[in-house]
Amino acid sequence: MITFALPKGSLLEDSIALLQSLGLDFSLFLDKSNRLLQITDPTGAARALLVRAQDVSVYVEYGQAQIGIVGEDVLREKMPRVARLVDLGFGKCRLSIAVPKDSPYTSALDLPPHCRIATKSVRCAREYFQSIDLPVEIIPLYGSVELGPITGMSEAIVDLVSTGRTLKDNGLVEIEVLFESTARLIAHQLSYRLNKDNLSDVIDKIRYTVNEK
Amino acid sequence: MITFALPKGSLLEDSIALLQSLGLDFSLFLDKSNRLLQITDPTGAARALLVRAQDVSVYVEYGQAQIGIVGEDVLREKMPRVARLVDLGFGKCRLSIAVPKDSPYTSALDLPPHCRIATKSVRCAREYFQSIDLPVEIIPLYGSVELGPITGMSEAIVDLVSTGRTLKDNGLVEIEVLFESTARLIAHQLSYRLNKDNLSDVIDKIRYTVNEK
Repeated sequence: MITFALPKGSLLEDSIALLQSLGLDFSLFLDKSNRLLQITDPTGAARALLVRAQDVSVYVEYGQAQIGIVGEDVLREKMPRVARLVDLGFGKCRLSIAVPKDSPYTSALDLPPHCRIATKSVRCAREYFQSIDLPVEIIPLYGSVELGPITGMSEAIVDLVSTGRTLKDNGLVEIEVLFESTARLIAHQLSYRLNKDNLSDVIDKIRYTVNEK
Repeated sequence: MITFALPKGSLLEDSIALLQSLGLDFSLFLDKSNRLLQITDPTGAARALLVRAQDVSVYVEYGQAQIGIVGEDVLREKMPRVARLVDLGFGKCRLSIAVPKDSPYTSALDLPPHCRIATKSVRCAREYFQSIDLPVEIIPLYGSVELGPITGMSEAIVDLVSTGRTLKDNGLVEIEVLFESTARLIAHQLSYRLNKDNLSDVIDKIRYTVNEK
């Protein structure tokens, strides 16, 4: 039986809708009173795990799930050993540099050398600033990155932006987009190569559904 | 003006009550409709930042807050360069190893070499298993660590336990306590040494309040 790893949070609703179009019903995960993290589709055809967005690729890498849905941003940050298969189109956002709106900086190259950058995306931020040859001090944070410039701890932030509302509410403006991200279908490498449980069938159906839209 | 960094989550209520006994009112942070992450006490005597538990020590290390409240578990995991001052007594929990209740392992040394351990506390887990000379594979997770043994991804977990309810609900039992944790008062090293804004006064008052209990 195939097991899917589904991400908690902003990608969950679209992920469940996608699997519903394949005849798999995991909508119990959308029920706020549900506490189960592992459920089987009512037809008994597949199983799903509900895990943190950052953990989806771990369960797929270790083969506890054969298929997972995860943001491109997480893949770029964690670089997991998984097969990357389909761009699912939903969950659009971008990893951007933002600064206070009264700041003199209008692009990444304007930032002063050795300035401080608060971010949850440590690897992506580090790689980007290396690529433009700008030495910066990365301050790793777990949440509310926008507090970095507000408190004066950092000149800028590198953070995911979808609607831009959080930036606006905190008086920040985007000055550079590092990359755009969408949800991706990933698979356990060996299961995918060996086509265990007819994995390619499911993947083809998902690819077809996504292309139809 | 002194700035406090207060942790979101389980330590927040007790932290705010402690500061209230010093005459500082940051109870706005307990109001669910509040979206502000930085507030000033109504008397104008001090400021507080509301940040993730793992980020408290970052704001204190960089001096954006002079005083912070954070769990001993976070301090052991992140090893920040901050002054560690007072054991506040509340927020009691322990970092423990747990296994499925039908597992044959009853202590850490029973675990087979090269077994897998799922955890959010990567550094603490690694150090512990090194100290008992047991080679293990640590699987870093962000949440719902209990899914590790349930899905068969790991033999055991290292996780924070307070009431033990999550373990019980997931059919897991504790076999070893790595350490006990409580909330700690920390301070920015330089501000503490230079006694900026009469920091030692505030710290003495907190120490006195805690010892009185």
